[in-house]
Formats: sequence, C-alpha cells, structure tokens
Amino acid sequence: MLPNNVIKFAQANQDRFIEELKDLVRIPSISSSKDHVLDVHYCAEFLKDKMLEIGLERAEIFETQGHPVVYGEWLGAPEKPTIIIYGHYDVQPVDPIDLWDTPPFEPEIKDGRMYGRGTVDDKGQVYIHFKAIESWMKIHGSLPLNIKFIVEGEEEIGSENFEDFLKPNRKLLSSDYAVISDTPMIRKGYPSICYGLRGLAYFQINLRGSKQDLHSGSYGGSVINPIHVLSQMVTLLKDENGRILIPEFYEDVVDVSPGERKALASLPFDEESYREGIGVKKLFGESGYSILENIWCRPSLDVCGIWGGFTGEGSKTIIPSEAHAKVSMRLVPNQTPEKIAELFERYIHSITPPEVEITIDRMHGGMPYLADTNHQVFTTAIAALKKGFNADAVFIREGGSIPIVRTFQETLNIPCLLLGFGLPNENAHAPNEWLDLENFKNGILSCIYLYEEISNLTSY
Amino acid sequence: MLPNNVIKFAQANQDRFIEELKDLVRIPSISSSKDHVLDVHYCAEFLKDKMLEIGLERAEIFETQGHPVVYGEWLGAPEKPTIIIYGHYDVQPVDPIDLWDTPPFEPEIKDGRMYGRGTVDDKGQVYIHFKAIESWMKIHGSLPLNIKFIVEGEEEIGSENFEDFLKPNRKLLSSDYAVISDTPMIRKGYPSICYGLRGLAYFQINLRGSKQDLHSGSYGGSVINPIHVLSQMVTLLKDENGRILIPEFYEDVVDVSPGERKALASLPFDEESYREGIGVKKLFGESGYSILENIWCRPSLDVCGIWGGFTGEGSKTIIPSEAHAKVSMRLVPNQTPEKIAELFERYIHSITPPEVEITIDRMHGGMPYLADTNHQVFTTAIAALKKGFNADAVFIREGGSIPIVRTFQETLNIPCLLLGFGLPNENAHAPNEWLDLENFKNGILSCIYLYEEISNLTSY
Repeated sequence: MLPNNVIKFAQANQDRFIEELKDLVRIPSISSSKDHVLDVHYCAEFLKDKMLEIGLERAEIFETQGHPVVYGEWLGAPEKPTIIIYGHYDVQPVDPIDLWDTPPFEPEIKDGRMYGRGTVDDKGQVYIHFKAIESWMKIHGSLPLNIKFIVEGEEEIGSENFEDFLKPNRKLLSSDYAVISDTPMIRKGYPSICYGLRGLAYFQINLRGSKQDLHSGSYGGSVINPIHVLSQMVTLLKDENGRILIPEFYEDVVDVSPGERKALASLPFDEESYREGIGVKKLFGESGYSILENIWCRPSLDVCGIWGGFTGEGSKTIIPSEAHAKVSMRLVPNQTPEKIAELFERYIHSITPPEVEITIDRMHGGMPYLADTNHQVFTTAIAALKKGFNADAVFIREGGSIPIVRTFQETLNIPCLLLGFGLPNENAHAPNEWLDLENFKNGILSCIYLYEEISNLTSY
Repeated sequence: MLPNNVIKFAQANQDRFIEELKDLVRIPSISSSKDHVLDVHYCAEFLKDKMLEIGLERAEIFETQGHPVVYGEWLGAPEKPTIIIYGHYDVQPVDPIDLWDTPPFEPEIKDGRMYGRGTVDDKGQVYIHFKAIESWMKIHGSLPLNIKFIVEGEEEIGSENFEDFLKPNRKLLSSDYAVISDTPMIRKGYPSICYGLRGLAYFQINLRGSKQDLHSGSYGGSVINPIHVLSQMVTLLKDENGRILIPEFYEDVVDVSPGERKALASLPFDEESYREGIGVKKLFGESGYSILENIWCRPSLDVCGIWGGFTGEGSKTIIPSEAHAKVSMRLVPNQTPEKIAELFERYIHSITPPEVEITIDRMHGGMPYLADTNHQVFTTAIAALKKGFNADAVFIREGGSIPIVRTFQETLNIPCLLLGFGLPNENAHAPNEWLDLENFKNGILSCIYLYEEISNLTSY
C-alpha cells in the first residue's frame, strides 16, 4: 500500500486533528488525584470510543487495581509484522495553578503552540498515532501492518498496576516491535530517536540522635546533631568533581565509547540556552564529561529532599532529634538497582557515627536501558522521520527512566522504538505545558510513513 | 516582718496555687505564631488582672511594636530596697504536636508533675513569684520590700521589642536588684544559683540553584544541587572533634580557669543519667572539655533546622531549586553576636560555590553573661534557698541565653540574680514539657524568704 494519499488526507485534515486533540486535553485526567478518578475513567472511555471511530476493529477497557488500561487492535494483515504502540492518557497535577497563564484544561492555541496540561505529555503524542491510523483507514480501509495500541492511566504515578496488567496479558500483547512516543526531541527541527534511558535507585535515610528535640542552649556542645551527621553523609556521597564516592559504584558502568562521544558532540545541543532554560548561574557535572554525556551516559546522584528540626518561620533554638534525606541515583548500563542498593547501604552504614541510629528505606528501583541501534527497526524510523520532518533524524539518549520500557523488553522480549515528538522546554510536569503544533503535524506524517516502513520488515 | 505565717499560708494554699497555674498554662501564648496574636494579648490581660488580684497596687499593659509587656508594682516600703522581677508569659511553638502525650494547652498532673507547654518555661516560674507575693499580701497586707514586676511576651522570639521598651522606661524600672527565674536547677534537691549564660547568634541560610525544581533524571548530572551545597557548608562548620571551623571564631573566648574547672567538677552532675535523659547512645562534645564545660563555658554551633526539595511520603524524583538551614551559635564571654555574625557571614560566603545564589538572614542575637558571685545579693539567695528547699544551694552556669539579663545589666546597671526552679529534663522547648510541683512549692517558699532576706540589704 502506498502512503501518498494517506499523507494527503492527513495534510488536508490537520486543523480538524488539532481541534479533536483539544477535546482530549479538556479531560482533567490527573491520575494522582482522588478528586479526578471519574475524569480518569471518562478519559479511558473517550479513548476507547475514539479507537473504534478511527477504525480499529476492537477496543476494550481493562480495569486494574488502579486506573484502567485502554486496549485497541487492528490485526487484518496476518502476513505482516505487528507493532504495539504504548502511550498514557493520565496527566500530571496542575499545581502551582496560579503560575498558569491559561486554565490548564482549557486548551488554547497561540503562536503555533497548544497550551494545556497533557498536550505534550502524553495526549498529543498518543493522538499523533491515532490520527496516523485514522488517515490510513480512511484512505485504504486497512493498515499496512498489524497494530496493538495500549494507553495506560498511571504512567505519572509509577505504572505499578500497568505492570500487573502486562504479565498475564503477555499473549494478547505479543508483537514484533514496540513504539513509544513519550520522549523529547533534542531540538526543534531535529527529529530524535532515543536509544537509552537511565535506571533508578531511590532511598530514604532516617537518622535519630536524641529521643526528642533538645534546647540548643542547654545541650549545645554535648550531643551529636543528626542534621550535621546527615550533612556529612551527603557531603561524602560526591566529591568536588561531581564524582560519586560510594565504593565500587562505577564498577559496572560502561564508559562512553569514543564513537558515541563523537556522535553526542555533534548533536545540536546548545549549553548556553540549556543553562538559561534551567535558570542556573553555572552548570555543574562530573568533570571529564560533557553535559550530554553527564545527563545521558553517566550515573548521577541527587538528594531530592532533606528535612529535620525546625523549618517554620522564625528562630526556634533546638537540636533536632531526627533528620531525613531522600536520595535518588540514576543508573547506566550495566548497573543494577539491587547491587547499587547494597553498595549504598554498606557505604552509608560505614560512615554512620556511633552516636546516631540509622535506617535506610529502599523506595524504588528501575534498570537502565540501552538499545542496539543497529537493529533494522531503527532504519525504518530514520526513513520515516526523514520524510515526515524533511530532516535527518538524530540519535539521543534520555536521562530519565521509563520503567515500562524495560518491562516491555523483559515481558514481551521485543525491540523498543522510542520515537518522541515533544520538545525539552514544553513544560511537561510544570505550569504552562504546551505542544508545538508543527511537531504534531509532522509527527502524524512520520507515523504514517513509519507503519509503512515497518510493514516491510520481517515478522518474527 | 516575719515570714512564718506567710509560709504557713503558702503551704495551706498549695493546691489552689497549682490549679491557678493551670489556668495560665491553658492560654496558648505562642509568640512566634501569627495565629496566636490574640492569645498572646489575652495572656497579657490575664496577668495584668492577676497582678491586681494578688495585691500589687498598680498593673499596666505596655503595648510595643510586637507583643505587650505587663508591668505591675508595689512600692509601699520606701525605706527598703526595690527589686525588679522579670519573667515571660510567651511560650515556644508546640510542633511536632504528634509527639505530645497530652494536649500541650490542657495541663495535666501526673506523678507530681504538671505537663503542658509553658509549665516550666516560664509560666510556672512567673507564678512562683506571683504566689509568694500573694502570700505576703494576704498575711501582712504589705511586702517586706518594693517590687516591680515585668512579664514580657517575646522572650522566645528574641525580646527585641522588649529591649525597645526598657530603654525609655529606665526610670520606671529603676531598682536595686533584679531577680529572674528562668533557669534550671542542676538536679532535683540542689537549688541552684546561676551566674553565667551563653549568648546567641542565629542565622538562616537560603540557597537557590535552578529557578524551579528539576526532574532528577533529565537534569541529574548537569546542575548543582543546593542540598548538596548546604550539606557541604554544614560539614565545614565543625570538625570531627566538635571544634567550630569559622576562622577567628575562638579569638575572644575566655578559657575556663583552673578554679572554675575544679568547682564545676565537684557539682552533682551525673553524665550517665544526663545521657540517658537525652536518650542518645553516646555524648559528643568538643574534645578536651567536660560536658559541663562544653555546655556552659564553651561556645557551640547547631543547625536547628534544615529543609529543601520533596519531603513528603514516597519518592518524587527532583533536583530541588532551594535549600535552607537555620544555624544557632551559643556564645561565651567575650564573644559578641555582632562580631560572630560578621565572621559567620564572611566564612559562609567564602565557601559558597559560584553555581548557587545565597542569602543569609540575621535572625537573633544576644550577649553572653557572667556575674560576680561575691556580690551580697548572692548571699541572700543562698539563705533563702536553704530555708525553702532545706538544702544547700550550688552555683551553676547555663548553656542557654536570656538576652534580657545582659540588657538589664546594661540598661539598669544592677546586679542580677538568676534563681531558677526548673529541672534540666523538663522538656522546655520540646514536646511534653513539664514542671516538678515540689519545686514549684519550694520555689514559692524560697521567694517568700528571699524578699525578706533582700529587704535587709542596703538600698542604693
């Protein structure tokens, strides 16, 4: 099947597609909020109906312990490969609400951007595939390959129930390739294929000195202060060059190869505008590595939160009895969260003075991910993006974790294509989230091409 | 005038005195909280009324820029000395509220203790004097000496407005001796006269890295984390021997003399029960000094509170944009809060990396205090305590600060008697604050005797 008329249809219907995306964005499907449970369910129903409208032959809602999963399929090309497309319909909370320039669930278009919660993360990207499918179906009455489409409702809160859904439904979901559109492009005009994600190991350290807070005058100079101990621990986690000091921490780290260094250095990444976007006076990373190497290929360690003692207004004079910190480490191949947890705990215990009691909670872990970019599915993506964006695709990695990618890999054992159409500054997770509408349109064209490209690959 | 019948009256009315103290403790006069402004004012009114009830001939409320000062006087013995009694009616905040076994403002009596915020610090001690005065007035219709009584409402937040009140009212307050009951006894059964207090310098450090919290995955490894910077700063404030690392910090410190070392060593102080009372596994102080030397005669530094980033339940993965710490230093002669503030700020700025923005708030300062124990007013206190407690008084210092003592000394230029009836483990500033009721009773008897003893001294 030729995509030419499909492309023409998509181009002719762009304005309608954008209007229809607005309807999806209007649903406040905030997964973390108890007040929005019905909205989340309504959003799932809405998507199920849309799946049938665009021509999928089956659409179904799977209830979970949490929010439902929407599943749709079109399996009318038995001799062709099957792809599974993953996206999520839940969105981040909107607070601080007063920092939004327009109401988060009243999408508005300005200067080629659609503003609204979920526009880029991930409703717009889900609809890119919906509209690509619709275009194929409207012109040919069929797709060039088989598609299974799952849209989950708990990505923003950890996908825990989604993982429980995946395992027993392995057969239903079995496919040749997975396509996920939930990562950013490195820069406008540079369609990007993501081949690596960092893993995660997350801990909470709890220290206790005295049995309760003490008067800092009456007792100051006679007891250890758990805030000082915790500060010392945090200080001993990294050196002044940004290198993590946990013994054996780097043992399994695969260093950036000279080839990859060169490739990353050639990417259209502008440190100065990156720095400005973050709003820091100066960037800081592990010395010996570029910013992109540091955020994509090197492990990192950050205290995400610290608290202890009196944190209100004014000047309460106490020696606190407790101090706590949340520590997140981003892992790279071949680190594993289990081994890192052991190394971390052993080290922290070794630097704990006898004056305090300590507990360490293991909160959360995820494996790093690195794809083999030589796989033929990457070739199809390069070709599709070239035609859809009229630009050469670049290969990128991403510093965050999408635990579901790894679960896909392990549960379904198939190559995973991370093809994202967001931009780094589109305020996902922040006020005034927006979606670049040119990327939305080019994304639809790219996916139309992508399905056709993949249809020429071998099915396993 | 003989105190015998006065003592009998006080003994016969002990239970009523205790009940009446409960009424005072019930008023949540938290001076640091905006929500309690009306309670603080109500507490002042309450005390003014009580002053008239116990027989003072004048009672008045002086408004200040902050909380009011309550003033009362009885000046019916013109040929006798005049003492000024100082106390405070404001109390510390109650958080962490969930660690209280009984509600902080619903006083409860158990095993000879009254539990409640302010019972020992300082409402109970203020009432010791109220009830001693009441007893004299009820029996003799007069006092053996002149009394000016001031109770302020901002002791727990630095007494700043109180100092502004003192200066223009120097004449109103002019007296021969000052008596302050806001210090602890070293141990139950050992009535204590305090001749030294540490000063205070209190700061808040505010750090900012990025303009808003960042995703720890996408950005981890490229920006400085203000929590790490703050931890490093805290670590650089003291070495592993408990010695403060701020340059020139010890320059003005008067070292403990051999004579005082010997006197302190002979006090009934048991390190093991002190350790147990605090509930730490091991004590920790500046090496080369005993515990008492460390908490009374050496300066100390403690972070009273630290906060930054995500401190809720679970595992939010962010690099926080801000981190804050409250730092309290206890000063000894001849340190001054002004010089220490300069040294502290200079040092903190010198260890601030260029990647973060910093502000330092000066919150609160107070001079250290050391009395000449050879003054005759100390002799009267020894005699009064001997009779009130049936025990020999001991001389102690106190690690906390009562900035007003120093101001008294400078503004009114009179000797100051620090006669406290609290116990070191009564949880002043902590949950489950309590007051030993035997000390409350013996304190009243001691003050009855004290007024009579001082009445025999020369008036200036």
